[in-house]
Amino acid sequence: MELSLDPRLVFTTLEVIAIFAFALSGLFVAKQHRLDAVGSFIAIFLAAFGGGTLRDILLDQRPFYWVKNSSLLWGVLAMALLGSLTLRLSSRLFSNRVILVADAIGLGIFSATGTQMALQLDWPALPAVMIGVIAATFGGLLRDIACNEKPMLMSDPTPYASVAFVGNWGLLLLLQLQWLDVFWSTVVASVAIAGARLLLAFLGVKLPQLDGH
Amino acid sequence: MELSLDPRLVFTTLEVIAIFAFALSGLFVAKQHRLDAVGSFIAIFLAAFGGGTLRDILLDQRPFYWVKNSSLLWGVLAMALLGSLTLRLSSRLFSNRVILVADAIGLGIFSATGTQMALQLDWPALPAVMIGVIAATFGGLLRDIACNEKPMLMSDPTPYASVAFVGNWGLLLLLQLQWLDVFWSTVVASVAIAGARLLLAFLGVKLPQLDGH
Amino acid sequence: MELSLDPRLVFTTLEVIAIFAFALSGLFVAKQHRLDAVGSFIAIFLAAFGGGTLRDILLDQRPFYWVKNSSLLWGVLAMALLGSLTLRLSSRLFSNRVILVADAIGLGIFSATGTQMALQLDWPALPAVMIGVIAATFGGLLRDIACNEKPMLMSDPTPYASVAFVGNWGLLLLLQLQWLDVFWSTVVASVAIAGARLLLAFLGVKLPQLDGH
Repeated sequence: MELSLDPRLVFTTLEVIAIFAFALSGLFVAKQHRLDAVGSFIAIFLAAFGGGTLRDILLDQRPFYWVKNSSLLWGVLAMALLGSLTLRLSSRLFSNRVILVADAIGLGIFSATGTQMALQLDWPALPAVMIGVIAATFGGLLRDIACNEKPMLMSDPTPYASVAFVGNWGLLLLLQLQWLDVFWSTVVASVAIAGARLLLAFLGVKLPQLDGH
Repeated sequence: MELSLDPRLVFTTLEVIAIFAFALSGLFVAKQHRLDAVGSFIAIFLAAFGGGTLRDILLDQRPFYWVKNSSLLWGVLAMALLGSLTLRLSSRLFSNRVILVADAIGLGIFSATGTQMALQLDWPALPAVMIGVIAATFGGLLRDIACNEKPMLMSDPTPYASVAFVGNWGLLLLLQLQWLDVFWSTVVASVAIAGARLLLAFLGVKLPQLDGH
Repeated sequence: MELSLDPRLVFTTLEVIAIFAFALSGLFVAKQHRLDAVGSFIAIFLAAFGGGTLRDILLDQRPFYWVKNSSLLWGVLAMALLGSLTLRLSSRLFSNRVILVADAIGLGIFSATGTQMALQLDWPALPAVMIGVIAATFGGLLRDIACNEKPMLMSDPTPYASVAFVGNWGLLLLLQLQWLDVFWSTVVASVAIAGARLLLAFLGVKLPQLDGH
């Protein structure tokens, strides 16, 4: 008799949280650019599903999570509709701080689960870490590219992808140490990455420019 | 003895028409941006093959249609060369109206056939509808991104992707009702989407902005 | 007893050279845009691995070369770190001429090996030639798109993708003539494409604009 949590189910739950967090960031960016309904939906869907879909293409994993579980698409669609209406009533609800937190949650979860998925497919360490970073950051990159904006990923000096990169190495270390099982290691890494991202952003830490001035 | 039309052949024919329609839109955009010959070819090929190739990657369908049938590539190459020469003689031939019609034809065909292909692979309804929209619109998105332009898909307020989205649900309804076989349902949906796109564009209907002002 | 060179090994060697050449071009572009460390790394990795990865996705080849051989990722990572430090000391080392040569080497190798790989998978001639051009040029395209720059591929009037296109047809001719084996034909085509690119750039040859003025 099995009583343990099904890791696939838990990963799906984490992914759902991350997808909605990223969808919220897409909604905010859409509002900033005053996109019409369709443009907003594209920005939201790219932010929510772009990174994970690219991850699955690179890992050659089919069916996509949003095909296996299409209620995810329905949920984001409902959120996009609802968000559009809510934003008309009060845009104050979506302050930069709400977005920052939502985005940090998405970053933490997608980078840890992406790395974990690559390791389960026997990818070597560095490529696995990279896949985690790509899963966590390329949705936002695609969102900004589609909006013809300088991608935040490339221009925002606060640590973002770098936190995911370092955090994914932390996950590898955790898995090596075997203090926790695979599932809890991934949860701890997700929380640590999200927390570190928020802490560094609130402290105003900035990455050095390549040129040093 | 089988006398019925081979649906694969008919879909290929529809796809050929759609590819050339989109290639024409790429040629026009290339002209607007005064791209050199290579830049124009890239814009034309992205417009013509980008959406369908992304569709096939997402559906995990190989070989690509332009590999199985490489005369498609030759045709678009010939059209790009010819179009470059023709445009020098008279740019009036390629008025906005010609482009609008060509693009509407591509939109209708690619969105209905893309949805149909996903359904045949047992994708659920909403993901299948989305694949149709992606197949129909992402070629133009890639074309505009490569030109470093604000994508029309994101900024043009006339209904475009939304028509494909609604039309693909119409296709699902048609298939459910079983008035027509799969092939004729797809043809009807293609024509309906192209027609609705043109009608709404000529009427000057516009989508609301997310912010409402 | 086999004494001949293992073509797989030689292709890998060529690919390593090409990857570092493209990484160098990414480093230079990152410096021009004054990107921070993470932005630079993304530009460098997209330039180095973007074209080859897209080639492998289109050819449906897994595992990716940078997963099979993850020391490539480590090498580029080390180069990115070292390059960032070196550039602070003396940016003169990275003159436009160094970049032009590095980029021409990458162009020659990736376009010939990409075409060769597609032919080995029984792709028809034109799609195989196109894959070579994509493998050689789309890394730079992705690099520029992520930087929100007008892609050089689309705007630079000196022959670049066109040299790869013509050179890949030369490779097909060479393979047809069977003067050399597959491996040496590919090496000759690589060198010829790189040489022709450099020669045309130094001579200042320019492609005509589509509009002719």
